[in-house]
Amino acid sequence: MSTSIFGPYTKTTENPELFKSEYLPKIEAYRKQLADNILDEYKLPEELIPKELGVDVTTIPAKFLNENELKITESSGTELVSKIAKGELTSVEVFKAFAKRATAAHQLTNCAMQLFTDEGLARAKELDEYYAKTGKTVGPLHGLPVSLKEHYNYKGKVTHGGYAALIDAVSEEWCLTVEILLEAGAIFYIRTNEPQCLMHLCSNNNIVGLAKNPNKTDLTTGGSSSGEGALIRMKGSVFGLGSDIGGSIRCPAAFCGVWGLRPSQKRLSMKNVTSSCQGAPESVICVLGPLARSAQDIDLFMSASLQGKPWERDANLIPMPWRNVSVPAAKDLKVAIMFDDGVVKPTPPIIRGLKLAEEKLKAAGVTVVEWKTLGDVEKLVATCGSMYNQDANKGQKAMLAKSGEPVMPLSDVCLSFGCGDNGVSISEQQQLCAIRDNGRNDYQDKMKELGIDYILSPAYVSVAPKQEKVKYWGYTNLWNILDFPNVVFPTGLTCDPELDAPVKDYKPRNDVEKYEYELYDDANEFKGAPISLQLTGRRWFDEEVVKASQVIHEIITA
Amino acid sequence: MSTSIFGPYTKTTENPELFKSEYLPKIEAYRKQLADNILDEYKLPEELIPKELGVDVTTIPAKFLNENELKITESSGTELVSKIAKGELTSVEVFKAFAKRATAAHQLTNCAMQLFTDEGLARAKELDEYYAKTGKTVGPLHGLPVSLKEHYNYKGKVTHGGYAALIDAVSEEWCLTVEILLEAGAIFYIRTNEPQCLMHLCSNNNIVGLAKNPNKTDLTTGGSSSGEGALIRMKGSVFGLGSDIGGSIRCPAAFCGVWGLRPSQKRLSMKNVTSSCQGAPESVICVLGPLARSAQDIDLFMSASLQGKPWERDANLIPMPWRNVSVPAAKDLKVAIMFDDGVVKPTPPIIRGLKLAEEKLKAAGVTVVEWKTLGDVEKLVATCGSMYNQDANKGQKAMLAKSGEPVMPLSDVCLSFGCGDNGVSISEQQQLCAIRDNGRNDYQDKMKELGIDYILSPAYVSVAPKQEKVKYWGYTNLWNILDFPNVVFPTGLTCDPELDAPVKDYKPRNDVEKYEYELYDDANEFKGAPISLQLTGRRWFDEEVVKASQVIHEIITA
Repeated sequence: MSTSIFGPYTKTTENPELFKSEYLPKIEAYRKQLADNILDEYKLPEELIPKELGVDVTTIPAKFLNENELKITESSGTELVSKIAKGELTSVEVFKAFAKRATAAHQLTNCAMQLFTDEGLARAKELDEYYAKTGKTVGPLHGLPVSLKEHYNYKGKVTHGGYAALIDAVSEEWCLTVEILLEAGAIFYIRTNEPQCLMHLCSNNNIVGLAKNPNKTDLTTGGSSSGEGALIRMKGSVFGLGSDIGGSIRCPAAFCGVWGLRPSQKRLSMKNVTSSCQGAPESVICVLGPLARSAQDIDLFMSASLQGKPWERDANLIPMPWRNVSVPAAKDLKVAIMFDDGVVKPTPPIIRGLKLAEEKLKAAGVTVVEWKTLGDVEKLVATCGSMYNQDANKGQKAMLAKSGEPVMPLSDVCLSFGCGDNGVSISEQQQLCAIRDNGRNDYQDKMKELGIDYILSPAYVSVAPKQEKVKYWGYTNLWNILDFPNVVFPTGLTCDPELDAPVKDYKPRNDVEKYEYELYDDANEFKGAPISLQLTGRRWFDEEVVKASQVIHEIITA
Repeated sequence: MSTSIFGPYTKTTENPELFKSEYLPKIEAYRKQLADNILDEYKLPEELIPKELGVDVTTIPAKFLNENELKITESSGTELVSKIAKGELTSVEVFKAFAKRATAAHQLTNCAMQLFTDEGLARAKELDEYYAKTGKTVGPLHGLPVSLKEHYNYKGKVTHGGYAALIDAVSEEWCLTVEILLEAGAIFYIRTNEPQCLMHLCSNNNIVGLAKNPNKTDLTTGGSSSGEGALIRMKGSVFGLGSDIGGSIRCPAAFCGVWGLRPSQKRLSMKNVTSSCQGAPESVICVLGPLARSAQDIDLFMSASLQGKPWERDANLIPMPWRNVSVPAAKDLKVAIMFDDGVVKPTPPIIRGLKLAEEKLKAAGVTVVEWKTLGDVEKLVATCGSMYNQDANKGQKAMLAKSGEPVMPLSDVCLSFGCGDNGVSISEQQQLCAIRDNGRNDYQDKMKELGIDYILSPAYVSVAPKQEKVKYWGYTNLWNILDFPNVVFPTGLTCDPELDAPVKDYKPRNDVEKYEYELYDDANEFKGAPISLQLTGRRWFDEEVVKASQVIHEIITA
């Protein structure tokens, strides 16, 4: 059984004629619908849209929104629900501000797959009427504009999961996690961009194409919750629902400079989520979770979602309500910092972020030690890759072959992870699972031995790279296979060519390090890209890692 | 993909010469050790051991134990730990009584694999010394004699899991669940009988051979926690640790007439448990749990085990402490009764037990409805069988082939479950897992629709059958694949040929029903066999099902 990060893969599914004749017309109609749904009342004037790539577009909405709209969209979710609940703001007022900002975000970054602000407005009106009539809110998210990555089934709308083959697959049922947000009072109006196969830490697909990083539009948003990263950074929604089996929440959060939580598995339901898995996956399991603008809003999202008791409607979940744990004091925090995973060394801006964190945390009285690699990261990352492709890519290839759509370069990469086209047998799967289970205990035991509760690390080797480049997922998918929860948050720092010059004489330890390290060959290309970090906690203790990340973020950005 | 209960299987692993030359001498030494460890001070006089089979031996210890020993061994675990903690009993006094009764139990039923009452006594002395010195107990099970099924790794002792191949495999580490019992103050002195492959609802193996049902010694104890069923029925330990992936706790509990809990998965650790699985299994997962003499003692066992916070030492567990829920009032209980699973109809004594339960529960104010089969039991049972054998029997066959040991008839049966020798591919496994996950929701939804919290059902088609006969596991392994927790308990009724005459003209609906139903062809053969029932609750709500079973048992036996 191979323990290398990449394995055999042959592209076998493309069928240009089929794609062109059968699917492209449907895709064009889908795109036209998206363009048509940019309503005049929310539209960013053409002259405010930069013609060139490589610019920071995060400041553009301020040129277009009025003072009240700006104030609303700059507010936190916690603040907004509280004001709506007190009658200080209406849902319609809040919605219109976000609809405008979301529309602008889409025009600037191509973050949407579907836009339906008309439906959002109708819903906002209904919520206001309910409130006017009863004096009550419908739930803890009453009136909050919430965005959704596209691949959660949305009753009555197409859900394609980034596959051309599913371009006319209308969902008959709600994704349970989405339905619970709806019941909690959320307003939906946008479904966001995601890559083909849902397995790039980037965004390209044959439906609406690449999303752009709002901080510098020639860089990637990350993926696969690509549109969510861009939209939240643009403040076009309060928070959004993403998914993560290898870094798909955390990587766009890190690259765009927002917050993201990958919760432990089986807390939020995966019922009615579209993907290429033909049945129920085992071994490494996708989770849903929020991208947001603060730890407090992550807490609000999770608390509201678990108040809906999803386990009563999905027996595959664990009945763990969201615990309201207290914010820890700095002196009680015990953190290990991982400067290097032993496979791919982080680039200078990331190292600078980690060092700043180390200094500031120590100064604030946090116990800080170094996390030395256990030497098993390559094995665990390769194992995770084999778990992704354990069915010999049958599910993904069948979905690609159905439409014959062009296969994106990063789809080729994800299909070559681990065992690649070879797949594994059931006996080999059992061995992979043993590696996983032993790894979980090795990491938990090591944390205990060091006396630490959290591990602070990069979320990726570097800041956001250029489009369609990322190949190494080890800083995120290590935690998917182990299923330890993580929060990604911005440090407030951005890449600065003066401070973050590439290490010219670095001798790579392996091919993947050589490849990744060389992507960062000119710091000017990444100027302004957010430097983000990832905080990992003990499995199932998601609440604690959210609260700890709040304190650590405050200390680092103080 | 097949959805029939049995699939292809060919016996390929026997090697009589190898077994005879290499393994039999070691097995003989193992047996001699077991015989030698029957110490004179605890030994049942030869004249009290019946020469013939087919007798009730449960009353024999009373002829041999003195009044104090009888009183101690008839006491509950809750009572004993309380008296030891108050200094009203010593650990040594308690231990000697149980050592005597366990030794007799073994002499009468062949329930032990290993007996080491000398070590148990030494441990009891240490515990008394600790208590004398500190006035404290070491933990919630201080001084309690606890039995262990053999296949949990026991530091410094051979653990073979019923496989001749492992007859000299000395364990280097404790099974974590056992270690936690030890830390809680349990005394170990006996490891109990289990079948080859650990996959018979019976007990035969090439190491020490068949265990006998104490109620009628020509009937099976059930399995695979065979020795535990017999020992607890003989009151040779307070409670014991069993394991269950298809009925292995519940079936011996039901056949012997004691209590058993199959908890939801990932609450008690499977770390360092010997089996033939070459790695970590997925799909359907074995769980550990107690066999005991009352709901209260099950509660004590689980509470003590989870006070040890096993999740801090095994990251594959879920951190769910044992909740101290209250005993429900009869009027708050909502129970559906399953009289027939639609595949194999239960025999007359079991139907009588269910009808008695229905009458008494209704009279007590319990809400009782009928559970009509969802029509999917055969599919779920076949799916569960395919999950057992998903690796094409590689793990089990490798373990059998290593010693070439004779393969027992019921090993042939278990190796033919589901896909049998064909195994499944990863894609097929994903489909099996989807059947499982959908089934979990179908059953949970149905319970909600009926407004019930519990399902009362048989634990097997009939009372304990003769040795080496059971083929149909559907009444228990339905709940393994769904992972809904169950308690098995005795109704106080036993098979009565006057009341439980076989249905002579019954027309079987299928081959497995024909086979199982025909095993019960002469009620006289089963006279005195306990009639037990199984209570199932919602997944993860183990505490509630234990407390509900306590009330239901009280009502039925009142």
